[in-house]
Amino acid sequence: MTRDEARALDAADPLAALKERFVLPPGVLYLDGNSLGAMPAAAPAASARAVAEEWGTGLVRSWNDAGWIDAPSRLGDRVATLIGAAPGEVVVADTTSVNLHKLLAAAVTAGERRVILTEPGNFPTDLYVAQGVAATIPGVSVRTAPRDAVPAAIDEDVAVVMLTHVHYQSAATFDLRAVTAAAQAEGALMLWDLSHSTGAVPVDLNAAGADLAVGCGYKYLNGGPGAPAFLFVAARHQARLRSPLSGWMGHAAPFDFVDDYAPAAGIRRWLAGTPPVLGMAALAAGLATFDGVNLAALFAKGRALSTLFVAEVTARCPQVRLASPADPAQRGSHVSFAHPDAYPVMAALIDRGVIGDFRAPDLLRFGFTPLYLGFEDVWRAADVLADVLASGVWDDPRYRRRAAVT
Amino acid sequence: MTRDEARALDAADPLAALKERFVLPPGVLYLDGNSLGAMPAAAPAASARAVAEEWGTGLVRSWNDAGWIDAPSRLGDRVATLIGAAPGEVVVADTTSVNLHKLLAAAVTAGERRVILTEPGNFPTDLYVAQGVAATIPGVSVRTAPRDAVPAAIDEDVAVVMLTHVHYQSAATFDLRAVTAAAQAEGALMLWDLSHSTGAVPVDLNAAGADLAVGCGYKYLNGGPGAPAFLFVAARHQARLRSPLSGWMGHAAPFDFVDDYAPAAGIRRWLAGTPPVLGMAALAAGLATFDGVNLAALFAKGRALSTLFVAEVTARCPQVRLASPADPAQRGSHVSFAHPDAYPVMAALIDRGVIGDFRAPDLLRFGFTPLYLGFEDVWRAADVLADVLASGVWDDPRYRRRAAVT
Repeated sequence: MTRDEARALDAADPLAALKERFVLPPGVLYLDGNSLGAMPAAAPAASARAVAEEWGTGLVRSWNDAGWIDAPSRLGDRVATLIGAAPGEVVVADTTSVNLHKLLAAAVTAGERRVILTEPGNFPTDLYVAQGVAATIPGVSVRTAPRDAVPAAIDEDVAVVMLTHVHYQSAATFDLRAVTAAAQAEGALMLWDLSHSTGAVPVDLNAAGADLAVGCGYKYLNGGPGAPAFLFVAARHQARLRSPLSGWMGHAAPFDFVDDYAPAAGIRRWLAGTPPVLGMAALAAGLATFDGVNLAALFAKGRALSTLFVAEVTARCPQVRLASPADPAQRGSHVSFAHPDAYPVMAALIDRGVIGDFRAPDLLRFGFTPLYLGFEDVWRAADVLADVLASGVWDDPRYRRRAAVT
Repeated sequence: MTRDEARALDAADPLAALKERFVLPPGVLYLDGNSLGAMPAAAPAASARAVAEEWGTGLVRSWNDAGWIDAPSRLGDRVATLIGAAPGEVVVADTTSVNLHKLLAAAVTAGERRVILTEPGNFPTDLYVAQGVAATIPGVSVRTAPRDAVPAAIDEDVAVVMLTHVHYQSAATFDLRAVTAAAQAEGALMLWDLSHSTGAVPVDLNAAGADLAVGCGYKYLNGGPGAPAFLFVAARHQARLRSPLSGWMGHAAPFDFVDDYAPAAGIRRWLAGTPPVLGMAALAAGLATFDGVNLAALFAKGRALSTLFVAEVTARCPQVRLASPADPAQRGSHVSFAHPDAYPVMAALIDRGVIGDFRAPDLLRFGFTPLYLGFEDVWRAADVLADVLASGVWDDPRYRRRAAVT
């Protein structure tokens, strides 16, 4: 494809105007919305309102007057519309890691089964949290099976199968419906990590019959750095499962200040401590970037963007190897390419305004956020990558110096 | 005391100018900084910078360039100076509830002991979290003893004694050093909840030989609604105790993305998920309100403020009964008064710009933040309370209508 052809695709794109919902710094091609989503144009005012008006002027009265107390459910219901969940099945709270712990600990203590089944190479925090549950609750263990062998590894000892829908490195996807059915056929619960899916690819939890899910607020939801995460519990399980993190905000009557814990009736039992109001204000602005958007068209555009990038890079960059499924139907909205010197290559790219990220040991990872990226952006990013690789400009000590966060 | 005498105390107060570090709405006497601290004048700009510059312009690069990755330790070290801890002993993370769970679960799985000892009427989330640990880890139980009987109730089954230094209702304090020593004499760990202490009263954890502590960021630290909390682990315990919430940010090498959890060497092993960057930016502004402040003088002023309030209310309001220790040395920086109709009385007070809070079933609670309150403020608040009580204006249906958050 030529740059003019890419530009023509943008001119014909009914979603192109959505990029006005964001502010991106000049000279930057941002292909890392899968790590930290770009800032919505409405975020500064939303944050300023939460700080100066709600906190500064409203003070403690804002728990009622500004609706702080309902924000976890209100934002949860908004997230629900992006993942095929019903109102009252999603709540915004804590972090993905903490929410994973809640659901895993609940799953392994709800019945007699004590095994958490997952895949090696899952996102590290998923594995670490599962290992933490196993180290804390006697009898619990973590079993792993390569992704293709997961269904066959589900047996009568497995309490919960925990998988990430879109793999954080390769972007390879699981079939939500088939794997959920396989878990349930053996009497296990299915827990999906939707961190790299939500807002980027179609997800229909209830159509898949999913039991449990978690996801991240700061990637494709554009909720800001360290945004609160979310948690899904299918309505049919809500009365039965209990959070191990039984804090006051999940109590049936938190302001009665009684001594004995009694879980709230619905999804709010999964709250623990006081909600992060300022983080939720920014997350609300991020979620609002999806308002009125045709999700099917949006996700189709995301796939077209990544497909264009893969085609250009494959044609023009013999130095790298595609480390994601070649079939766009088998992957999420990011792609990875392997290069033995991926770290300095990415540093040189970032220096030229193309922001992707490095993932150890040898991956260049690029995310495609259809809300704010166009076809010409993607064409130019591939062009810069081709130039950096062909010129060898990345082979420089300043690009090899490792930062704390890679 | 007359209003003029109170005004004279303000004129002679070397700390009076500190109130310029805050913005308070006109017409409000804010006696609820023990629930949600007032907004620092620097908070709007600090939040705006974190949103528009660090997130909007810096994007994912800000993890390194804006120091996001080090913020939990950096802010933790700042909190440490307010509670007598050493650098590297405190980290800012998650919520008070989640941090309590981490430390309690670690304490009851570190050895053979399985009992959590606390007092009935402790802050509810402390009790609920302990009950959640007991419901999740087989063999763990929660034992309670009335506060005076706690030392005698510590025996060889007790893994950890969990108490709140300043009681959330009465403000009654425990003797940090004596109770810590009593716990340790029986081989138990001592866990202090400092939520109603930090930034308000003297706390010297290391002088007391404390083992573990947690505390809140949004009360006297002025960190904003739902601010991240903090957690203390004495240096001598850091290698031995492990967080049950073993997320990636607590890993020894989080960006190596290996499959097996290995805890970070120091206090950072208590991190779980991605830190709440926007919440931490506001908390940093809150912590900065203590910069250069003589803490002994500040805490003495706080005590003088609450003492003035108690004297005035006791003298002028026969309708209420002091529900806090009469001896200022035995209480923290808030006081409670009992009234059978405390809810409508507080609603009428708030309607007149005196913001305290109601605590079920019958308490009017008032907090005294010496950073932004003066003696005349306190005198006027007592004057309004006397007027509301004497006039009976509170006895009105509109003041009896309960809000979601009380």
